[in-house]
Amino acid sequence: MNNFVYHAPTKVIFGVGAENKVGKELAEANFKKVLVLYGKGSVKASGLLDRVIKSLKDSGIEYVEMGGVEANPKVSFVREAIKVAQKNDVELVLAVGGGSVIDAAKAVGLALSHNIDPWEMIEKRIHPTKRVPTAAVLTIASAGSEMSHSCVLTDEDSKLKRSVNSDYLRPYFAFENPEYTIGVDKYQTACGIVDTMMHTLERYFTTDINSDLTDSIAEALLISVKNAGKKVMANPNDYDSRATLMWASSLSHNGLTGVGKSHYFPVHKLEHDISGLYDVAHGAGMAVVFPAWAKYVYKYDVNRFARFANKVWKVELDLNNLKWTAKEGIKAMKNYFKEIGMPTTMGELGVKRADYATLAKMTTSGGTREVRSYIPLGEKEIIDIFNIATE
Amino acid sequence: MNNFVYHAPTKVIFGVGAENKVGKELAEANFKKVLVLYGKGSVKASGLLDRVIKSLKDSGIEYVEMGGVEANPKVSFVREAIKVAQKNDVELVLAVGGGSVIDAAKAVGLALSHNIDPWEMIEKRIHPTKRVPTAAVLTIASAGSEMSHSCVLTDEDSKLKRSVNSDYLRPYFAFENPEYTIGVDKYQTACGIVDTMMHTLERYFTTDINSDLTDSIAEALLISVKNAGKKVMANPNDYDSRATLMWASSLSHNGLTGVGKSHYFPVHKLEHDISGLYDVAHGAGMAVVFPAWAKYVYKYDVNRFARFANKVWKVELDLNNLKWTAKEGIKAMKNYFKEIGMPTTMGELGVKRADYATLAKMTTSGGTREVRSYIPLGEKEIIDIFNIATE
Repeated sequence: MNNFVYHAPTKVIFGVGAENKVGKELAEANFKKVLVLYGKGSVKASGLLDRVIKSLKDSGIEYVEMGGVEANPKVSFVREAIKVAQKNDVELVLAVGGGSVIDAAKAVGLALSHNIDPWEMIEKRIHPTKRVPTAAVLTIASAGSEMSHSCVLTDEDSKLKRSVNSDYLRPYFAFENPEYTIGVDKYQTACGIVDTMMHTLERYFTTDINSDLTDSIAEALLISVKNAGKKVMANPNDYDSRATLMWASSLSHNGLTGVGKSHYFPVHKLEHDISGLYDVAHGAGMAVVFPAWAKYVYKYDVNRFARFANKVWKVELDLNNLKWTAKEGIKAMKNYFKEIGMPTTMGELGVKRADYATLAKMTTSGGTREVRSYIPLGEKEIIDIFNIATE
Repeated sequence: MNNFVYHAPTKVIFGVGAENKVGKELAEANFKKVLVLYGKGSVKASGLLDRVIKSLKDSGIEYVEMGGVEANPKVSFVREAIKVAQKNDVELVLAVGGGSVIDAAKAVGLALSHNIDPWEMIEKRIHPTKRVPTAAVLTIASAGSEMSHSCVLTDEDSKLKRSVNSDYLRPYFAFENPEYTIGVDKYQTACGIVDTMMHTLERYFTTDINSDLTDSIAEALLISVKNAGKKVMANPNDYDSRATLMWASSLSHNGLTGVGKSHYFPVHKLEHDISGLYDVAHGAGMAVVFPAWAKYVYKYDVNRFARFANKVWKVELDLNNLKWTAKEGIKAMKNYFKEIGMPTTMGELGVKRADYATLAKMTTSGGTREVRSYIPLGEKEIIDIFNIATE
């Protein structure tokens, strides 16, 4: 096992009624004024925003609110929100929504605590040096941002989607009531299932193999998500399966499933520029690119891909032909994505072949940015992977 | 899944050289003066204490040190340590050792932060109301106290062993270098393996069944510990397996494997008074009592015990006779404990039949304390379980 630091201090308040505890928890932690961020208004329609605000009022916490965070949150919005936050002297940014809202909140929090433009921070690779005060009331099981060390932003001008990672970015609190995910439609639910799996899979497929406990926990999570995903597709009202998906989204990106292992996330890098250029849902993009990446690299660690096939997808372990087992596992994963309604080809995603070279150039920053994987992925390799994803 | 709060904010610094980072981490968190607690001197012999103290000095942190914590830490020692801590105005108690040293540190920390006698706190069931400043440099994979919400003390006069549980009791830092566990002898290593398994098993066997993700992670941990335990018994120098056991000890008691489930710990309650009266190692006591408890209660949830048998011990799932599968699983667990050198009968543990009634009376506080399990365990039931453990 590699040396590691594990620090996931987010306090998770999980279950029915979690949203009513927001005010009490923030008050106990001495926050007196907060900025409430949300997206396009579904949290108004569901009544969630009202409940959160009532909870804040009941605990004597002042607030300003600001809606309008888009999927793949944009730097321009974040800059507006920073102005509102600074003008009102807020001490914490409370996201009510999914990963995009939480990431926007983290970016605003960066500005509050470090007095810096978040995109400048990302571009200059400046790392946070203190905790960024955020909290999340989660409405979709997907990004895992509610416990993660990550914040992803998109710059509209360059179409670049980039991330900053630091333990200081983990929210102080995550309020997770699975009831609010019951209304999420099948497509977005499936995107979330893929996204959750991906955060663990990117950690699972590395060259580090001396981490059995981490890998076993990863497999347990993947199997549990796979089964809960099927149950939710058949019955969207299944509370326990919704709860499984929600808690899994948090665990899958809080570091647990990658402890003692390398942290490269090659497929996220490939997908980020697709969703930057085309504004597709991240989970859908990953459902297309990940199996293609796996087909491209599995030969560099057949045993690992065979283990994955056997443990997670219940493919027979053919010790005379582990390559067969490995490939069957990748097929089974792709079939699962199809089964839950995800695209699995670039065409279904709407990505044009003519853009592959542009995308590869974006992802490698024209050859200057290294995409580490089993082998380094340069422009040629990325185009090869996109070609596999075409079929 | 039941509603839950999950809050495990301990920062874990894991791997080779972790002990050299103590000073830097404590200094960054603004601690200026600490009490260093340790046990009977093995940390001096190994050179660990010197390295920790050098690390403190290098970061300009003042310290006082105090050795002599015994296994099953005694209230009288804790009271002496509190005097030393208060006289020297220390801000944090740094345990260098295993679960007993960490629990002693937590008890001293309780006094520092709450100005109260820890045993009085336990007896009057007063719960902590703020964080208790402790950190741990861990030397044995076992108790999980380095991330846990629990502190267990023994009162020499009454021979009672009792615990206080609160999220505020989780240490600020855990420094875990598996190299220091390589010198732990086979018996203590085996006690640690059992102890680690038990923290998950007590959470696994409850009447809550709608928690597949938690249960799957629990099984993954148990299997990984089972395998790493065998490898360490065959080769005590196996670093990766030692690392697995160490990290598993932290995860097994930090709450993760019980998320969304009830928290009764009936077998711990039975064992605590055995190790209070006889001063046996907790893990050894659990290896005797747990299989007997399982034989006594499995009939109240045959499916769960069959799942355990099949998943963890690879017993065939006989759908025509799940009771058989369940019982074979309990046998397999008991055989595993034997294989790693643990006692599995009261006789081997040195507990006299004549004391069963006394022990049952202690555990139930003469009938006034409820021991919840699949069925309530009163004096009669506890004696029945001890009788099963006799064979």
